[in-house]
Amino acid sequence: RAGARQDPPLEHELPCSLEELYRGTTKRMKISRSVTDMSGRTERMTETLSIEIKPGWKKGTKVTFPKKGDERPGTIPADIVFVISEKKHPVFEREGNDLTHTARLPLVDALCGATIKLTTLDGRPLTVSVSDVARPGAEKRVKGEGMPQSKVPGTKGDLRVRFDVIFPRTLSDQQKAGLRQLLPSG
Amino acid sequence: RAGARQDPPLEHELPCSLEELYRGTTKRMKISRSVTDMSGRTERMTETLSIEIKPGWKKGTKVTFPKKGDERPGTIPADIVFVISEKKHPVFEREGNDLTHTARLPLVDALCGATIKLTTLDGRPLTVSVSDVARPGAEKRVKGEGMPQSKVPGTKGDLRVRFDVIFPRTLSDQQKAGLRQLLPSG
Repeated sequence: RAGARQDPPLEHELPCSLEELYRGTTKRMKISRSVTDMSGRTERMTETLSIEIKPGWKKGTKVTFPKKGDERPGTIPADIVFVISEKKHPVFEREGNDLTHTARLPLVDALCGATIKLTTLDGRPLTVSVSDVARPGAEKRVKGEGMPQSKVPGTKGDLRVRFDVIFPRTLSDQQKAGLRQLLPSG
Repeated sequence: RAGARQDPPLEHELPCSLEELYRGTTKRMKISRSVTDMSGRTERMTETLSIEIKPGWKKGTKVTFPKKGDERPGTIPADIVFVISEKKHPVFEREGNDLTHTARLPLVDALCGATIKLTTLDGRPLTVSVSDVARPGAEKRVKGEGMPQSKVPGTKGDLRVRFDVIFPRTLSDQQKAGLRQLLPSG
């Protein structure tokens, strides 16, 4: 077999939800490949590959199954490579080991305080209280509620809650007069 | 002179203020170059080049003075090229033919109305009234108060005023109670 060349690797995208990347999971992927038996006869076979996703894995992480491509005389079967990608999440975005969430707050809640109710990626209820004035673009950091760090088991990044403050469209003259009395004039 | 090669062009940056690019101006640039007389003697000379900046010129505009480089036997003097660049302005930024200005408004003015006083690039006072609620990131467009369009004399872009709303750092419980009564609850 000296001099046999290996086919170039076959890459497949493996989309994972943030929940799967948070908790870890096992993904089973069915592949179909040509296999050559002792007598040199080739037949089509399906095989199931099992991929262990560890908590905290990032997009771009590669899992390689060596020589799982088609068997053909005179060549070494290609490696099959799965590349982790991240599915969009409706509530959280990932930034490295941190998670971010943008909370839409009516102006009155941004000024007077608000309670934001979230569900973590492992299904726990999480309440974030905002008692200071929530300025647009400001962040409230919740320590340890980010993604697990796969390289440092047991540690997690932070959750960073951002505020998208919704202003009222219009205000009456009466409301404006009241606000002029209540709010500092800069 | 057949076969004489020209030296590569010499580029110089010509920084202009937004005021100069708005009104147009004449810039005089002194250059020093070698000149060869009839008898073949070379001497150093200074020369003043006059550059007519037209209203609305953009950064990157080039003005070429052909063959104003050093005269040397056997070569054609280089062209001298001035490239317009824009100096930073404390009040306005240019975006194509538009000007933008970011007005820092205390929250109370953003909600109750404000008057923004500016001085245009040709020195006129300009008052921009904000009567609607000024949301952060929103823009108020003032038609025709942007940069002149050099290719369509007599027309100008717009001025776009943006709002950077300054929230109070803290509010007392009394202020919060008042705000809860005044502002819509989303």
